[in-house]
This record gives sequence, structure tokens and C-alpha cells, in this order.
Amino acid sequence: MNEPGAITDLVTRLRQGDTRALARAISLVENDAPESPAVLSACFPHIGRALRIGITGAPGAGKSTLVDRLAQQFRHADRTVGVVAVDPTSPFTGGALLGDRIRLREHASDPGFYARSMATRGSLGGLALATADVALVLEASGKDVLLIETVGVGQDEIEIARLADITLVILVPGMGDDVQSLKAGVMEIADIFVINKADREGADRVEQEIRGLQSLAQTHEPRTPPVVRTIATTGDGILALMQSIGETEQWLRSGNHLAARRTQHWQRRLDAMLRTELMRRARQNGFDTKLLKFHATRIASGQQDPWHLVAELTEKVFSPDNSS
Amino acid sequence: MNEPGAITDLVTRLRQGDTRALARAISLVENDAPESPAVLSACFPHIGRALRIGITGAPGAGKSTLVDRLAQQFRHADRTVGVVAVDPTSPFTGGALLGDRIRLREHASDPGFYARSMATRGSLGGLALATADVALVLEASGKDVLLIETVGVGQDEIEIARLADITLVILVPGMGDDVQSLKAGVMEIADIFVINKADREGADRVEQEIRGLQSLAQTHEPRTPPVVRTIATTGDGILALMQSIGETEQWLRSGNHLAARRTQHWQRRLDAMLRTELMRRARQNGFDTKLLKFHATRIASGQQDPWHLVAELTEKVFSPDNSS
Repeated sequence: MNEPGAITDLVTRLRQGDTRALARAISLVENDAPESPAVLSACFPHIGRALRIGITGAPGAGKSTLVDRLAQQFRHADRTVGVVAVDPTSPFTGGALLGDRIRLREHASDPGFYARSMATRGSLGGLALATADVALVLEASGKDVLLIETVGVGQDEIEIARLADITLVILVPGMGDDVQSLKAGVMEIADIFVINKADREGADRVEQEIRGLQSLAQTHEPRTPPVVRTIATTGDGILALMQSIGETEQWLRSGNHLAARRTQHWQRRLDAMLRTELMRRARQNGFDTKLLKFHATRIASGQQDPWHLVAELTEKVFSPDNSS
Repeated sequence: MNEPGAITDLVTRLRQGDTRALARAISLVENDAPESPAVLSACFPHIGRALRIGITGAPGAGKSTLVDRLAQQFRHADRTVGVVAVDPTSPFTGGALLGDRIRLREHASDPGFYARSMATRGSLGGLALATADVALVLEASGKDVLLIETVGVGQDEIEIARLADITLVILVPGMGDDVQSLKAGVMEIADIFVINKADREGADRVEQEIRGLQSLAQTHEPRTPPVVRTIATTGDGILALMQSIGETEQWLRSGNHLAARRTQHWQRRLDAMLRTELMRRARQNGFDTKLLKFHATRIASGQQDPWHLVAELTEKVFSPDNSS
């Protein structure tokens, strides 16, 4: 697939609803294949219209069920739906694969629905970039709504949540010190708080804690995030949540809130893209893994000062004589 | 402080036990001041001897109390102790500052003890690098044992835990699905599991879950991590934990386990250092924040393709004509 024609063709087909072409394009960008920039570039003119909703919460909060319920509601309203599930579950549990299978069974025959689970790509920041790329291809395929589901526990997940136009933070009563122990940054990105499994004891307390933190925060935001209670397994509260999402969407599309968020998103993403590309180019100019390992051995045994080495290696990359 | 002489002097003083010099050097590297590489470089010849112990666990697991208990034990055994506490707690709680104050009160008069809380530096990976730098300065000051305390929930924290020679993963009974929901990677880095607050109901279940996951994992490691129960507040189990740490240290120092770990550590750190330095140099060559913001606005409104832009900007950085 080296000719540009093949990539144009692939994107044309995925835009026409060809699910196999969509799956293939997603795999290319998810795996950061050599064709990835060309695929993304070909998809880029076809984005900007979809509403991106991030759903984040601890393992066991009921995110998948909630996402399925929301997907059903959007489909009833005749809006097409793409789901990206990012669940870097421990290799021990294999949660992501199971989730996929349940979804496939339910929506297999619906051409207006497509779901994809992400595996972890590389280390720091890699997963956030890969998710952004996959979401972009899904959006280019013409989906009206993207649901991006993540485990809200780490910096990577916060970066992923920031892909979204609207972020739902899911909490559950009785799951320990949930509100207090929310990772720094998670409170701040919430547009809507969802208390799921709201029939459990302690839902009132969770809501009070959210309200308490909100009043402490003296928020700079022009809008205090609403709190919605749901029971995803029965569907209770889903209509209220849909309404809350609708109101948030309206608010975002009024004024320049949406444009401002998307600019911020692209600024962070551009920075990450440049960082990745710089490192790729540097690896071609001698920063390869084998060399790093050689130097690491010498550093660990005290024979080589890493700060001198970094200055030296960087100089070499930027030096004109070294360009090949 | 631009003359190399001043930095040599600073490092000489911190090596002689001058706490103010130590605090100043740590601030320089924590804030990534221009003098930072020179300070680290001057400290580098004086490291390699200390034992680095990482302590990681969810908020509320009792990490600080446990760290204080371990510090006391090491001081009783006449080993000097440095603590680096990395707790990117939400701005709402201000946990890190409070922790510092408690520690300062307890150990203020002990010259063989020094504790420092880290603030978050930058985004992805920045905190792990900053913590590594602070730990290095502390180690160069002559501490025998470093205790590095982190909230074990994100990729950043896993990177921080990997600074350590020995990693303790702290679990607590009754804190929800704790073992199951451990972030991918946390199980894998544990050298010792600590069940703290072991007098609570459910300690047996937590231990069974750990054992279950260990048997599932078919570990590649040459050594199955022991499980130790403690009650940090009363001191119960701390001697058993100290013994377990001692055995792990002995095992590490036999064969080349310790050298292999430290080489791996330096390989990752070198990679991160090169990445950071490349980006710094690139920013000087035109990748500045203002430019990124300008482009982000154009991308968000669909006027500029980011993949073409990244290729173009990167080319410019590596182009000989552009070296200044």
C-alpha cells in the first residue's frame, strides 16, 4: 500500500460505509504504520462535524454499560455512533477483548455503529496519540457521535479525555474514597458528573462530596458541571443524562467554547506529534536502541556521565555535517 | 551561579552535610534550572552505593506512615535516609505540603534524614525525570537509603517506581477491587507486596488475590514477590518488612540483578533525557509555543493539515540551513 492512490481509495471506501476499509485504516494508524500520516492526512478534511464525548471512570464503574446505553439512545435519535474503548487493563484480565465481543454481538448488524478497543501503544503519551488518531479516522467515516471510553486513573487517560468535546466523569457509591482519590486533573476535566449504580447506598454522600469539592475549587470555568444519577444496567437516568449532554452541547456550540477547546486540543496534540517525529528522525541519526543500551551500561557502572553524553549526542543530531 | 566553580562548591558543601546546599541543589534540578545539568553532572560521580526503595500505592493506603516507619528502622540501623515523596494530589487537598510538615517536625534535628516533596513538573514524563534528578542529588549527598514514595496509579508513577532498586506495592483490605484494578504494569514491578492496615477485614482475600494473579501470570521473573502484612500506624509487621527488604537486597546484590536493573533504568532515562533535550533545542529552532498556538487555531478550523505541518517543521529543524 505504498502508492498514494491506494490510500485515497481506502479513505473513499471507508467514507462510503465500507466497514472492512474502516477497520484496515484504523489498524494502520493504531499501529503507527508507515502509511499512517497519509491515511490521517486523507481523513483530515472530513472531520470537525462530530460530537466527541469522553467517558472516564475507575474500573468497575460501569463505563461499558453506560457507553452502550448512550450509543442506543443516539442511534434511536438517528445519529450514527463510533466507540473507542481505551482500557489498558492488566494483561491478567484481558478486559478489553471481552468488552469487544459483547458489543459486537449487540450491534453487529447496525451499519450506523462501529466500536473499537485500543491496545496500549508504546510508553509515555503513545496511547493518547494513538487514540486521537483512531478517533479521527472513525470521525472521518461519517459518525455523528464519538464515544471515547477510558479508565480515569493516569496522566495518559487525562490526555485521552481531553480529546473529547464533552467529558463525563463516572463515580460509583461505595467504591472507597472515590471522589477524594480522583487523580489530580480528573475533577477539572469533568463537564458532567455521572453517579452510576445510583441505587447503591451512599449516592447522596458522593453527590455531596462533588458539590463540596466544586465549592472549594472556586472554579474558573464559566459553568458548574451538573451531577446526573444513573443505573446503567436498567437504563434509569439515561434520558436525563442524554438531556444533560444535549444542554452541554448547546452551550459549547454557543459562543466560541467548542472552537477554543478544539484549538487547545490541537495545540497539545501538535506538540506530541512534533516530539514523536523529532525522536523518530533522531533515531535515524544515530539515537538507536542499541547505542542507548551500550551507553546505559556504561552509565550504570559509572564510566560515562549521562549529561555530557546527551549534550554530545544532541549536538550530533543538529550538526549540519551529520545530515544524511 | 553561572561559574562552574560555584556549582562545584555547592556539590562539595552538600556532600559535607550542608542541608541548605542540598536544598538549593535539589531546587535547581527540580525546577530544571539552566544549572541543572552541571549540578547533576557534578553529583554523578558520587552515586551508585545507595539502596533505592520505591513505595507505591493508592491514595489512602498509608504510604507516608509506612515510609516514616521504614525511615525510623533504617536510622536505628545507623543507615542515613533520604525521602522523595511524589504525590500529585489534586490541588484541592494539598496533601504533599501537609506531609512535609509532619515529617519535618519528627526528624527536624536528625542530620541523617532528609525529606522532600515533589511538585508536578510539566506534563508527560516530566515528573519522572524530575524525581530521578532529585533522587540523584539526594544520593550524592551521601544517604545510604532512598525511599521514593509515589501514588501508584498512572504511567508516570510506574516510571517513577522504576527508579528504585526494590519496589514495594502497598494494598489495603476493603478499598474496593484493589488488586483487580491495579493499573497494568503495577503488578509487574512489585518486588514485595505489602498489605497495610492488615487488621481490617479482608486481608486474607487480598493476599489470595495477589497469589491468584501471581499463579496466573506465569511470571518470567526468577523470584516470586513475597507478601508482608503491616499496620503502619502501630508498627506491626515493620520488622518483617525490613527483613523482607534485606533479603531482596541480598538477592539483588548476588548475581548481576542489581546491575541489570540499573542499566535498564538508565536506558529509559537516557531516552527521556534525549527526548527532552531534542525538544528544547527544537523550540529554539522555531517550535515555540506561540507558533504552535497559531498553527493549532488553523488546524482546529480545518485550514491546515497537521501531518504536512509536522513534516515541514521537522524538516526545518534538521535542515543544515537552519542551524544558528
